[in-house]
Amino acid sequence: MQAPMTVDLNLPEDRVGPRVRRASKRVWVGGVAIGDGAPIAVQSMCTTLTHDVDATITQIERLQEAGCEIVRVAVPDRRSGEALKEVVRRSILPVVADIHFDYKLALMALDAKVHKLRLNPGNIHNKDGVREVVKRAKEQGTPIRIGVNFGSIPDKVDGELRDDAQRMVDLALSEIRILEELNFDNIIVSVKAFEVPKMIAAYRRLAKAVPYPLHLGVTESGTLVSGSIRSTAGMSVLLYEGIGYTIRVSLSEDPVMEVRAAFDLLKSLELRDQGLTLVACPSCGRADIDLIPLAKIAEERLRALPVPMKVAVMGCEVNGPGEAKDADVGIAGGVGKGALFRKGKVVGVFPEAQLMDALLAEIDKILIENGKEPYSQKAPKSTHDGELTPGRSVPAGTRT
Amino acid sequence: MQAPMTVDLNLPEDRVGPRVRRASKRVWVGGVAIGDGAPIAVQSMCTTLTHDVDATITQIERLQEAGCEIVRVAVPDRRSGEALKEVVRRSILPVVADIHFDYKLALMALDAKVHKLRLNPGNIHNKDGVREVVKRAKEQGTPIRIGVNFGSIPDKVDGELRDDAQRMVDLALSEIRILEELNFDNIIVSVKAFEVPKMIAAYRRLAKAVPYPLHLGVTESGTLVSGSIRSTAGMSVLLYEGIGYTIRVSLSEDPVMEVRAAFDLLKSLELRDQGLTLVACPSCGRADIDLIPLAKIAEERLRALPVPMKVAVMGCEVNGPGEAKDADVGIAGGVGKGALFRKGKVVGVFPEAQLMDALLAEIDKILIENGKEPYSQKAPKSTHDGELTPGRSVPAGTRT
Repeated sequence: MQAPMTVDLNLPEDRVGPRVRRASKRVWVGGVAIGDGAPIAVQSMCTTLTHDVDATITQIERLQEAGCEIVRVAVPDRRSGEALKEVVRRSILPVVADIHFDYKLALMALDAKVHKLRLNPGNIHNKDGVREVVKRAKEQGTPIRIGVNFGSIPDKVDGELRDDAQRMVDLALSEIRILEELNFDNIIVSVKAFEVPKMIAAYRRLAKAVPYPLHLGVTESGTLVSGSIRSTAGMSVLLYEGIGYTIRVSLSEDPVMEVRAAFDLLKSLELRDQGLTLVACPSCGRADIDLIPLAKIAEERLRALPVPMKVAVMGCEVNGPGEAKDADVGIAGGVGKGALFRKGKVVGVFPEAQLMDALLAEIDKILIENGKEPYSQKAPKSTHDGELTPGRSVPAGTRT
Repeated sequence: MQAPMTVDLNLPEDRVGPRVRRASKRVWVGGVAIGDGAPIAVQSMCTTLTHDVDATITQIERLQEAGCEIVRVAVPDRRSGEALKEVVRRSILPVVADIHFDYKLALMALDAKVHKLRLNPGNIHNKDGVREVVKRAKEQGTPIRIGVNFGSIPDKVDGELRDDAQRMVDLALSEIRILEELNFDNIIVSVKAFEVPKMIAAYRRLAKAVPYPLHLGVTESGTLVSGSIRSTAGMSVLLYEGIGYTIRVSLSEDPVMEVRAAFDLLKSLELRDQGLTLVACPSCGRADIDLIPLAKIAEERLRALPVPMKVAVMGCEVNGPGEAKDADVGIAGGVGKGALFRKGKVVGVFPEAQLMDALLAEIDKILIENGKEPYSQKAPKSTHDGELTPGRSVPAGTRT
């Protein structure tokens, strides 16, 4: 890699940030608004075969439970196209049909009343077919997402060799032009790449060039952890600049994980609020409790919290409550026991083995105080329970 | 949450990016340069009890194997302080001593020739003690990191109530002043918080206010996935602006995972290059192969790659090689078989069960062509092998 330049950046101190969004048109995908100040919508894509309607609907329901707001399904063939009617009828979420090359599949999707098409008109050779699809989409109020992926663009656009980001933008603009010339402007656009700097440059340029809401994503980003990191690296830079109105985290994983990752990202940037926000300190040579399994158990058991709540799991009883004073409720480990606290104030001390139950009971109390149903009876079980061994085998009194 | 403002952002198209870094002083931590254009250094912290020297050294060796460049250990008591000499002597990495309140522990750390102190002089009540520590650190060329964490700052700094980010910056500046007044400028600074917008604002202001290299981090960020996402969300915005010369991803996890997450972040932003970069498409209704376990197996088996290499695992044989044309090497699934490709060109077709071995053999060929040792014999085993079932039980010929 080249040596970097070092400069006096002279940056403005608080450039943009989570409360300022780029102005854009608004597009509706079913009942979900995209753009023009709407909350950033989270979407995912089914990994099922679309013509296996039962499996697809089951997956859509799992995605919706995790918070997903829009779901895409692949339509690679007539059999999938024929299944769309039933998928749309039974789906709890707005459905996007992903179509390449074949305008007849797009017409089938429109017949099925899908809520959005993902389709690049430039990929469809039958131009009369394109006109028919766009006319029908306009009549039905169905938006179209233009989706440019760096991996699938030709080396040259319009005969010119441009830099990679510009080639993505140029291709997106040429696809948009096809729709605009047919008087269609119910458009969402994406310019995804695996390489984050390329993707950031493309979205920044596109944001200046068009009035449409942008769908952010990093393609082929990988497995759960590395893919979440790569997706977050690319999208957080843009989102923090006010760019992006709907996101998909693409992972080689159960798509439910994509939805969780998307909300973790949006919650981190304070762009959305939802369920559990876990504050957990790294275990270190100061921790008085076996923190790692405790944090994992807390995350699993509290994942389905019905209201936004910040919950802390801290390693030491002395500093933990104060350091996590912003948390609504939390636990902090001592030697073989731990403190339960609210907004930094200790409200009880419990043996380590009872700490998680005490936390759940306190959360129930908070919910009831706020007129909500208690949660603990509905909390998912943890798969990490066996890992929670009492203490770290440090004899009491040796940590002075 | 408040409704956002929407505005015409009128952003510069390519503001900053990975090749421009903020100018800063340079600080040396053992043989590792921090600041002034040096590569961004990855650090972590031991979760062992420091006085358990064998366990600490074993963990340091695991961290170093994962790529860690600087390691911190907690020094909460005399017993840990006494262990530092042996830890420093046996450690393969530069060692940072984490000290609070007690200047005598800092003197013990200096006696042990640690490579950096993490210490806030304002926390030490014995002012003669502070002078002695700073004098000794200066004589030995030992840098000091001022580490302000939002959770542990008092509500008021200098009698004024300022906004949260500014309170962190003000406290950091007052700590820095103590060192500067003792003619000490071998300083690194951090202003960490759990809340990403707060942390970003604090670092941006600090970057304008001081000439020292900044250590980035998001505190108490949580468990593996959500913590990696939160850390990446905060740090990528800053790193992409050229701010930050060393990072720690803090997770409630084995610290080896912190190091992997840090490199995944830095590789995504093209700030560091290291070992495997996995390109893997999300499984979808178009995939012809059971992609998720294949991607997981590839990641585990290739994690220890000794040179930077971009490896793709793609779902479909038709589009996969082209979409991953930037990858050095890759595999793409077909029905029951798959293609092996290099830079987008197919070089062989193998039954699905042999695809991973074919990939490893091709990687060996690339390494040997470049005068390197082959890798496949040293590759770690996968824990996911059992999950790889042939195909997706889609009968051949049904996906038309």
